Formats: sequence, structure tokens, C-alpha cells
Amino acid sequence: MDADALISCGAMTLQFVAEYWRSIEKRPVVANVQPGYLRELLPIEAPEKAESFSSIINDLESTIMPGVTHWHSPNFYAYFPTAVSYPAICADILSGGIACIGFSWIASPACTELEAIVMDWLAKAMGLPEFFLSTGNGGGIIQGTASEATIVALLAARSRIFNEKKAKDPTLTLGRLLDQLVVYCSDQAHSSVDKAALIVGCRLRKIVSDSDCVMHGEQVEAAIAEDRAQGLIPFFLVGTLGTTPTCAFDDLVTVGRVCEKEHIWMHIDAAYAGNAFICPEYQHLLNGIEYAESFDFNPHKWMLVNFDCSAMYLKDRTHFIDAFNVDPLYLKHSFQSSAPDYRHWQIPLGRRFRSLKLWFVFRAFGLDGLRSYIRKHIQLGEHFTKLINKDERFEVVFPAATQLGLICFRLKNTPNELNERLLKALNDDKRIYLVPSMVKQKFILRFAICSWLTEEKHIEFAWNVIDQVATKLLLSK
Amino acid sequence: MDADALISCGAMTLQFVAEYWRSIEKRPVVANVQPGYLRELLPIEAPEKAESFSSIINDLESTIMPGVTHWHSPNFYAYFPTAVSYPAICADILSGGIACIGFSWIASPACTELEAIVMDWLAKAMGLPEFFLSTGNGGGIIQGTASEATIVALLAARSRIFNEKKAKDPTLTLGRLLDQLVVYCSDQAHSSVDKAALIVGCRLRKIVSDSDCVMHGEQVEAAIAEDRAQGLIPFFLVGTLGTTPTCAFDDLVTVGRVCEKEHIWMHIDAAYAGNAFICPEYQHLLNGIEYAESFDFNPHKWMLVNFDCSAMYLKDRTHFIDAFNVDPLYLKHSFQSSAPDYRHWQIPLGRRFRSLKLWFVFRAFGLDGLRSYIRKHIQLGEHFTKLINKDERFEVVFPAATQLGLICFRLKNTPNELNERLLKALNDDKRIYLVPSMVKQKFILRFAICSWLTEEKHIEFAWNVIDQVATKLLLSK
Repeated sequence: MDADALISCGAMTLQFVAEYWRSIEKRPVVANVQPGYLRELLPIEAPEKAESFSSIINDLESTIMPGVTHWHSPNFYAYFPTAVSYPAICADILSGGIACIGFSWIASPACTELEAIVMDWLAKAMGLPEFFLSTGNGGGIIQGTASEATIVALLAARSRIFNEKKAKDPTLTLGRLLDQLVVYCSDQAHSSVDKAALIVGCRLRKIVSDSDCVMHGEQVEAAIAEDRAQGLIPFFLVGTLGTTPTCAFDDLVTVGRVCEKEHIWMHIDAAYAGNAFICPEYQHLLNGIEYAESFDFNPHKWMLVNFDCSAMYLKDRTHFIDAFNVDPLYLKHSFQSSAPDYRHWQIPLGRRFRSLKLWFVFRAFGLDGLRSYIRKHIQLGEHFTKLINKDERFEVVFPAATQLGLICFRLKNTPNELNERLLKALNDDKRIYLVPSMVKQKFILRFAICSWLTEEKHIEFAWNVIDQVATKLLLSK
Repeated sequence: MDADALISCGAMTLQFVAEYWRSIEKRPVVANVQPGYLRELLPIEAPEKAESFSSIINDLESTIMPGVTHWHSPNFYAYFPTAVSYPAICADILSGGIACIGFSWIASPACTELEAIVMDWLAKAMGLPEFFLSTGNGGGIIQGTASEATIVALLAARSRIFNEKKAKDPTLTLGRLLDQLVVYCSDQAHSSVDKAALIVGCRLRKIVSDSDCVMHGEQVEAAIAEDRAQGLIPFFLVGTLGTTPTCAFDDLVTVGRVCEKEHIWMHIDAAYAGNAFICPEYQHLLNGIEYAESFDFNPHKWMLVNFDCSAMYLKDRTHFIDAFNVDPLYLKHSFQSSAPDYRHWQIPLGRRFRSLKLWFVFRAFGLDGLRSYIRKHIQLGEHFTKLINKDERFEVVFPAATQLGLICFRLKNTPNELNERLLKALNDDKRIYLVPSMVKQKFILRFAICSWLTEEKHIEFAWNVIDQVATKLLLSK
């Protein structure tokens, strides 16, 4: 715990990052290396002797940076954004410096308490139902990722249905139940739902979404009826607010009513779009959330909180504690009844002081500043939409997507193959970076506003690149 | 991405942490607050307007710090250590500053490549079998925690046995298999094994360890024979190197032979003790690892790498990819066959650039420096053992524990109840912090060397506190 070294080496590192941020626009957005590039540059064994810190920092530019894909380049439009901000990085310095492991209240009370408080702040800012506040039976927890939140919700739902069924049939085994359980989600849901079902070992039924990629209650209800007729047991559904391919919003009102009627646990995955709900004008998209048992979104995507920080809310925390409670003596303490022990709400035992990141970001930007950030990205998306719409060769597809900073487009009236070639030509060109999606048999290009640095001029640059590359491609056709 | 704010606010935060480290010894080791203390100090809603960064930093001492239990106080002897070091914190600054999400090779090649390289460095430094190196069929991955590593190994083993059984009986369902599967571990294994079995839904059979808390092959073999006779299917065993209650080492040679003969996946959890294997004099404790399919330990405990960094090794990565592979178009890329995509080796999708922490720590300390750190803690443990042994009122119990910096002790020939009172009196005294364990019906006090700052004088201080508190307790008896 060398305080002097922390200050001097920390300052060197901050300087490196600051220079990186200042130069990021000039760097090729996607790493231009081949697999194995780094092994040729580094020794094959760890050094025996200590090296100077400056020699480590000096190696970064020649070894690590060529292999970095710059998620915060204003020319990066792939996947969804991941957040970065100076207050979040500072909060991580503090979390690293305090270095407590908050698996129980007593292991570091501030760690648990700040998390409950800032998660309540966040819920209020988003207009979430009161039952998600920690002051009632529910509460918020910071998970690592939306994937983990889905698994945790699925396990709690499995625990609930098992307890209910077992009460009626004491001979019931978990395996026998598992073979009957069915999880539902839209055919547009994220692959993490597939992975969660694979991990827990449940069958997953994907509901066909409508032509706008929206899942409705009617199709859910029909699927449930079919499955019940087969002797299966529907028990869990993931509704998505803002799907990954096109940022579509499931019709939670009709889906939620079906879930309520059919006693199905509805978990909502709003990983990306959830961030927009801090703006009142988007809170109507939450309609139907009153039917949810659990809700999750990622401030680490679009709310300036560095990864990892996935905000999960539970309506009734007892289901979670039932699912995860293992309590050896070395973890017991005398405050267990009066304070949440988050270890029972998550898969790992250990946990960092991640709530500091949310606290720092809320205070350093204010809700005002966070809303401006969200709105700016949405406006940049609208600007791109206008540019695409002006050109007759292109069409914006699944226009629901355009409202929240993701634009899906393609060459109008052309086969998928040509659009695949366009994407490949764009990524070979290397000036901007996009990833595709395949939706309703259409190969589409996804254009997600990602970087803090992105301004209108970058959108126009990106559009010019797309225009040029498409023109060349169409000429050579 | 305000580079100037990063430098100035980062410097303020580093300064705060440096002052914290300098003053840590003077702070009460355990937070002296009641549940709910922080809610009284903070506003009930997030601020609308941005606040100055200095006002945030200025609030830390009055709001957060009273609720911190100081894991790095030299008077903290509870649980196991958690690591902290300036190079790891600097690496986290860099990881936060680059802020790439390395879920696939192309998403940031350096992130995947550095991880494979430093995990190979680590395996070589520890003398792990060659099959764990990434240059063969195996490889290392950084998981968040040992809990996650156990679950990941368990899921891969479930996938392997299911594929094998299904090949012989195509009507087999996962649920039917699950009802027959049995996981084994010692009765001394960590609660995370219980949690993993609970999550996956397998029955868990705990093998009674010997009087030194060691699990042997003979007892495993007998349990397996009994279970097979009942029609059950043994398939997975967790061997522990360095148990949490007493740092006992399972007899991996005999256990491993049984696992090999019985076709059982042996996973090794060496969460704490594994760190010592970078010292050649402790590598003999790895005997039997040649039978393991997977191995995990936590550099974030005792190797100066801040949480989270759990080092997991796999013998054959195909089992993992089978268990976790879901591959939507937006995550596909053209290098998939030539580089590992770690997303298939873990539960979450997203991942931070955590390998930077290992790389920085290896280089800033050298293997030499890391070994000295481990050895110093072990020597401090030996010193404490001597002090305990000199006093006839006390006994060191389960002496295997003393070899690696954890000392278990109690009042000699006294009932558990008196030892419980001693622990309570020590923790009420508040000068040092310990947690207990219940082992073989004995209530014991665990004394774990935890802090970078701990020196012989602190051990002597702790011993004096124990002496005084015990004397007072015994007088009042």
C-alpha cells in the first residue's frame, strides 16, 4: 500500500488515458491486427524482477493499443454503447483503494447501504413502480451484467414454482419439474436469454414477434395454451424493452396481463433502452412494468457509468433469498435481519464497491446532465435517419429503432447478399465500424450512436463514408 | 470524455486514497455504525444539477468512511485477505479509460490476447500441468470469482455427462439426468459449492474429512459406490486446496485417482492457497492436480491484484464452448476459428480488460516480489503461532492451517461457548477483527494475515489484545 507510488503511477496512468482520449479520433476504429499478434510482442514468461512503472506505461502504445478496438471513437457505431466517464473512473479508483468486499452488511456497511440508496435514487428518477424500492419488499442490486440478472431472475422463478408445486406434490423432484418448465421470450430477445435457459436447463420457446419486431400478449397466450395442453409448465418470460437487433419494445401491457393471469414471472430486460427512462418523455415506454417481478438495465451502457454496473430491481426479495441462501458461520453476523445481504441476491459471493460509480456519476452530472447526454444521442440518431431517408438508394427499416439512437438501414429493394457486401466493404474501408443483424429474414446494418465524442459532423462523416462505399459497390455490381 | 477533468479529479481521488492508506491504521477496523446509518446522511433523491467534484470528495469522510470495514487495516484478520496494490489500481484506471468490452476477439483483440498470455505466464509460474496452457487444448480465463468458476466447471461437466449419456439413450432428458447426478466435495468445502449445486439443481454429497479436515480418496470411493448402488450418477467433484475454515488440503492424489477411475470431473478450488504456488516450496501441495479437468484460484485474494480476478484453467475448452455457445449474428466475426472467444467460457457476455491488472502486477513486482509478499505473510502467521503456543491457555487447532498464513486457535480444553464469548469480546473490544468457524464440532477463531501493512509489531499487538481480552474473560468466568 505504497501511497506515494499510487499518486505518481496513478498520475502517469491518468495522463496516458487523457492523451488516449484526446487522440482517439485519429486512431483506426477497429484494431488492425491478426490473431496471435500480441504473443509475438511479449515475453513468454512473467518477469522475475520488478520493472519500473514507466517502462510498463511506455510499452502500452507499442503492444496493447494496436490491438484495441476503440469503442469510444466517434467512428464506432457497432453493438450498443458502453459507458465511460471521469467520475466513474474516479469512483473505481476509490473502490480499488478502499478494496473492501461487501458480501455482507458487516463486511463493509457503506458498501451495502450506498447501493440500496443509489438504486432507490435511480428507480425514482426512472419512475419505476414503488414496489421496486428497497423501503418495501423489493429493492435494487447492482449485478455485473444483464446476462446475470436474467439468470438470477430465472433461478428465483424456478425456486418459486418448485416450492409451489412441491407443496402440492411432495414427491416432486427438481429434475422432473425442469423437464416441464418453459421459458418464453420474443424471437428478438438477446442471446443471453438463450444462455440463461441453457444454464438452468429449461426449454425456451421464442414467440414470433410482429412485423415491427414487437411481442404481443395474444401470441404469448396462444403459446402458453399449446404448452399447457402438452403437459408443460410455463413459468418465466423475458420481455424486452429495446431489443438488440432493432431496439423494438415488447407490448408489456398485453404480455404482462397474460403473465399475471397465467402466474408467470415476467422479467424485463431493458439493457440498453432502460437508460432513456430517466427522461420523462420516454417513461411511457415502461407501460406494463407494473406486471413485472424483476427488471434490469445497464447504466454501464448509456448512463456514463463504466462497466460493470447492471441495475436490477426485484419486487419481492424473499424469492431470491430462497433461491441462493447458503450461510456458513464465517459469513454470519448479528445484523442479518436488519440489513440486506446482497450475497443472497446474486451468483458470486464477493462484490466490489460498485455503487460508488453510480453515486459519483449522479452527483458529477446531475440528472439534468444525464438526461442531456441521452437526448443528444437520440438527436444524433435522428440526424442520421434524416440523411439516410434523403437518399433514395437506402431505407430505414424497423423505424421504431430510430427513436433511441439505434438506426437500422439497408439498400432499398435489394437482396441480403448485396447488403452483406456493403457491410463488408464498410468494415474493410475501416473508417467507421458497424455490425449487422438478421431480422425477419432481412440482413440489416445497425448504426448505434456510441461515443461521448460523437457530434453531428461525425454523423455526416459516417454518412459520407456509407455514401461513397455504397456508390462504389453499386457501380461495380 | 473530458480529459482535463479526468486528470484533475483523478488526482484528487488518488490523493484521497493515499491519505486513506496513510491513516488506515488509526481507524477503527470494523465500521461502528447501525443499519440505516447512511440513509440519514444522504438525500432521498438524486441531485438534479451537477455538483462540483470536490464536494463529492469532501463528503467521503463524513458519509462513506464511517461505514467502511477496513480490510487493509493491519488489525484486520477476518475472512481471507483481499488484494490491493497501486499497479492493479493503475491497470483498472487504464481498463476504465479504454473501456472496451472484450466479449469476442474482434471486439478488442488485445483484451483477449493479453488474457491468454498472462494466464499462461501465471500457469508457468505456478508449475501447473502443461495441459492448462492456451497453446494446447486448454487455457486460462479470468472469471469474476471462484464461485463463478465452480459453476462454470459444473455446467461444463453437466454438458459432458449429458452428451455421453444421451448418445447411449436418445430419449434422455436433462431433468431426468439431473435427478440422478451427484456432486461431491469435502464437508470443509466453501459455501460456494453448495450454491453452485443449488443453482444447477444437482444433489450435493459432502464427504466426511479426516480429523485434520482432509478429504481422501477412500471416502470418496465409498460414497460413489453407495450412490451408484442407488442408481445415482456421480459426475463432478470439487477438491479444495486450502479450505476456508482451516486451510486444509484435500488429498488430491487419492481423490484424483478415484475421479479418473470413476470418470468424474475433478475441479480444484484453491481460492486462497493457490496464490502460494508461485513459491516453488509450496508447489508440492499441487500433487494430484494432474487428475483435474479444471482449476481455479483468486489472485484477487493474495497476489496483489485487486478484486475481481479469479484465475481459472481448463484442460479441454471444448466442453465449455459446448455448454455456453449461443451465437447471434451481431456477435459473429471472421476470426472465430483462430482466436478464443472468452464469452463461451463464462456466464456473462460482457467483460472488462482485467488482464491488464495481472500484467501490471507481474511487471511492477516481478515474480520475485510476489513471492516475497506471500512468504512474508506466511512468516507472520508462523510468528503468531509461536505466540499462541507459548501461552498454555490456548491451543492452535488444525495445525495444517499454520503453514499458509491462517491460524486457527481456541482456549484449550474449554467448551465452545467460552470461545464464542471470547470472539464476541474481541470483536466488541474493536481493536482487531476476526471471524469464527465451526469445525468438527469445535468453535474456533480464525486469524488470517490479511493486510499489506501487517508487520510483526501488529501481530504482537493483536496477540496482546487477545491476551488481555482472554484474561478479563477468564477472570469474570
